[in-house]
Amino acid sequence: MSHIVALETDDVRFPTSQSLDGSDAMNPDPDYSAAYVRLRTDADDGLAGHGFVFTIGRGNDVQVAAIRSLAPYLVGRDVEAILDDLGGLWRELVHDSQLRWLGPEKGVMHMAVGAVVNALWDLKAKRAGLPLWQLLARMTPAEIVDLVDFRYLTDALTPAEALKILEDARDGREAREAELLRTGYPAYTTTPGWLGYDDEKLARLCREAVDSGFGQIKLKVGGDRDDDIRRLRIAREVVGPDVRIAVDANQRWDVADAIDWVGALAPYDVAWVEEPTSPDDVLGHAAIARAIAPIPVATGEHMANRVLAKQFLQARALGVLQIDATRVSGVNENVAMLLLAAKFGVRVCPHAGGVGLCELVQHLSMFDYVAVSGTLHDRMIEYVDHLHEHFVDPVVIRDGNYVTPVSPGAGAEMLRESIERYRFVEGRAAG
Amino acid sequence: MSHIVALETDDVRFPTSQSLDGSDAMNPDPDYSAAYVRLRTDADDGLAGHGFVFTIGRGNDVQVAAIRSLAPYLVGRDVEAILDDLGGLWRELVHDSQLRWLGPEKGVMHMAVGAVVNALWDLKAKRAGLPLWQLLARMTPAEIVDLVDFRYLTDALTPAEALKILEDARDGREAREAELLRTGYPAYTTTPGWLGYDDEKLARLCREAVDSGFGQIKLKVGGDRDDDIRRLRIAREVVGPDVRIAVDANQRWDVADAIDWVGALAPYDVAWVEEPTSPDDVLGHAAIARAIAPIPVATGEHMANRVLAKQFLQARALGVLQIDATRVSGVNENVAMLLLAAKFGVRVCPHAGGVGLCELVQHLSMFDYVAVSGTLHDRMIEYVDHLHEHFVDPVVIRDGNYVTPVSPGAGAEMLRESIERYRFVEGRAAG
Repeated sequence: MSHIVALETDDVRFPTSQSLDGSDAMNPDPDYSAAYVRLRTDADDGLAGHGFVFTIGRGNDVQVAAIRSLAPYLVGRDVEAILDDLGGLWRELVHDSQLRWLGPEKGVMHMAVGAVVNALWDLKAKRAGLPLWQLLARMTPAEIVDLVDFRYLTDALTPAEALKILEDARDGREAREAELLRTGYPAYTTTPGWLGYDDEKLARLCREAVDSGFGQIKLKVGGDRDDDIRRLRIAREVVGPDVRIAVDANQRWDVADAIDWVGALAPYDVAWVEEPTSPDDVLGHAAIARAIAPIPVATGEHMANRVLAKQFLQARALGVLQIDATRVSGVNENVAMLLLAAKFGVRVCPHAGGVGLCELVQHLSMFDYVAVSGTLHDRMIEYVDHLHEHFVDPVVIRDGNYVTPVSPGAGAEMLRESIERYRFVEGRAAG
Repeated sequence: MSHIVALETDDVRFPTSQSLDGSDAMNPDPDYSAAYVRLRTDADDGLAGHGFVFTIGRGNDVQVAAIRSLAPYLVGRDVEAILDDLGGLWRELVHDSQLRWLGPEKGVMHMAVGAVVNALWDLKAKRAGLPLWQLLARMTPAEIVDLVDFRYLTDALTPAEALKILEDARDGREAREAELLRTGYPAYTTTPGWLGYDDEKLARLCREAVDSGFGQIKLKVGGDRDDDIRRLRIAREVVGPDVRIAVDANQRWDVADAIDWVGALAPYDVAWVEEPTSPDDVLGHAAIARAIAPIPVATGEHMANRVLAKQFLQARALGVLQIDATRVSGVNENVAMLLLAAKFGVRVCPHAGGVGLCELVQHLSMFDYVAVSGTLHDRMIEYVDHLHEHFVDPVVIRDGNYVTPVSPGAGAEMLRESIERYRFVEGRAAG
């Protein structure tokens, strides 16, 4: 038996605002940051569980404080007992009667639970000697169902329905696992499309994306309509008719604006419209989705929890669900969202980029392919070429695909020297 | 010209779990707490702005950290410029591009902005020598509209529609102000209904509530169905047929459970069913509302922001909107919610109790009566007889009504000795 002996945190901030990487209509100057957590044990294996919440700068200290506040729930406890029942641990933390007042199930406190839950999954996968996607994909359907909290979901998805989805996907798991290891998982790239880039850089990066084998790129929109039309035209000219172009408004519009603006962009063959309005606005997204069909609405990177995901699916308010590895309460809640999407027959194309989001979320999509949806049809994981060099196991992209990771763990572990170099000190600019 | 010279915070926790005050189906043992903030200036008047976020114990330190993180946005700035444009200050803080990533507009960071915004309103009202309700009710319709951020609202409420609501209510403002000062604002009481109380205490407190002139009481439900039926029967016997009894499930149920359980309670003439399920579940509440009509659904104390309020109203998912003074981003966002309710013709019966929520929220209802809805019909503010003694201007209840406050300010100021006595120290139990 071993115990959790420490919950350590770091406030890590990269000075990305200096190059306008990550600039969009709502986020002109983000400093990509991580509220980082390490769970240490007294086991002989020396393994630690790593996790983090991605933020874009100011407030990363608040996120760190929230993670630190969970130490009394974990330090001193039996590691094996916790790792054997991560569904139970999730419920204990998310439904803690006093902490849940601070959400419930949303924002800083919910993401803090997610970081800790993800760190425990990282530890569990390392102990199993497996990458997280493979650990999850080899669990039995009953074990997977037990990870999920069905509270507030049963009007859309019952445990029995979830079990059936997983049982139905059991056939062919081994074949899909082998295929995944051979070919990887499709990616699309947002690298060309940041609002702060000039037309020349946009065109050059679009060309590089096509040359690198990506089948879809994404442009940020919503700042100025004429600029958007010009940039979309340039991108379409460069990539040709066969590469898909999605656009992303980052919550910039009200409902009527969104419908109107998308109408002006539609002639350039838009693959999806991402985050047209408030991420809380199920009914608004549904109205937009009806108006801009057949162009699908995509959203999810700011979706607070599985209850929102349920409603977006019930209301047909999205056509692409973009789960995010650190927005909700970790792996367990994302498993719930994958099962909901499977129930409603909606494709999942995760949000990534930021700091380490690619490293984390690939495991969820790969698990989905092997054990839940069983399909790669029209599915892609976002890819942005930023900050991967700070991770112990950085993602690798080859011919427009994520190369399937084989190292044990969840992909969250950051290099010690990167943490030291970019540790935030009050009163000093990021970096 | 004067400046904000300090943003001071306190972590204040009362040991209410020892008496099971505040116990309900989701919150068995709350320690009512306040993440408290004081804004000091260098003006000669010596006035400070006070505000807080109500929490129920653990995590209050995280809420304090979030409030403290806003100091750089305020300290050193011109007080008069800020107080002259609180709509602008609200937009600046809520839409700060880096901080909003932590919500957006929900949870710890959003409530932190609310505490600071409310502290500024407290200061503005003290400087004007008016209670907050009167300060607000004497603003012009255009000034009130300018307090509200209409982003994400315009599909339900435009600035022009809001202006018209306020202009229409302009006639009779003076008469309603005079009436309010004479008669106060109706209250209902939750004091009898906590789940942790035994039947004898329940019956005694019900009798006292009737004797004190309350026209409505509220019982907590959702723990055990047979207990709920028994307690509701006892309460109905004691209060008689003319006093209304509302029930409050504190988010305990899934959709089907809620419909089923309420069916069992309906014979006892239920005034409303409060928080039947997840506060994020617009579609779930709408399904419940359709099924249990004509019993109305009431919700709002955990409603994260005005975008949720908009949707609950659009979907007819509630019949009673229960705004909360510290859940959203302060006075400005609650003004938006009052205007939305007026647009949809839905009554507002605020959530109160906790620490200081009665003291704060009465100002919003009184402002609503004078300048927005213009009616008291079926409207009541929740009242719970807890912890008022810690405030400089505690609420006064007379014959089942809130006595209209006349002291300058927003009601948020806690006694210095209470703060000192109940300041939380790490490692020590609350209180």
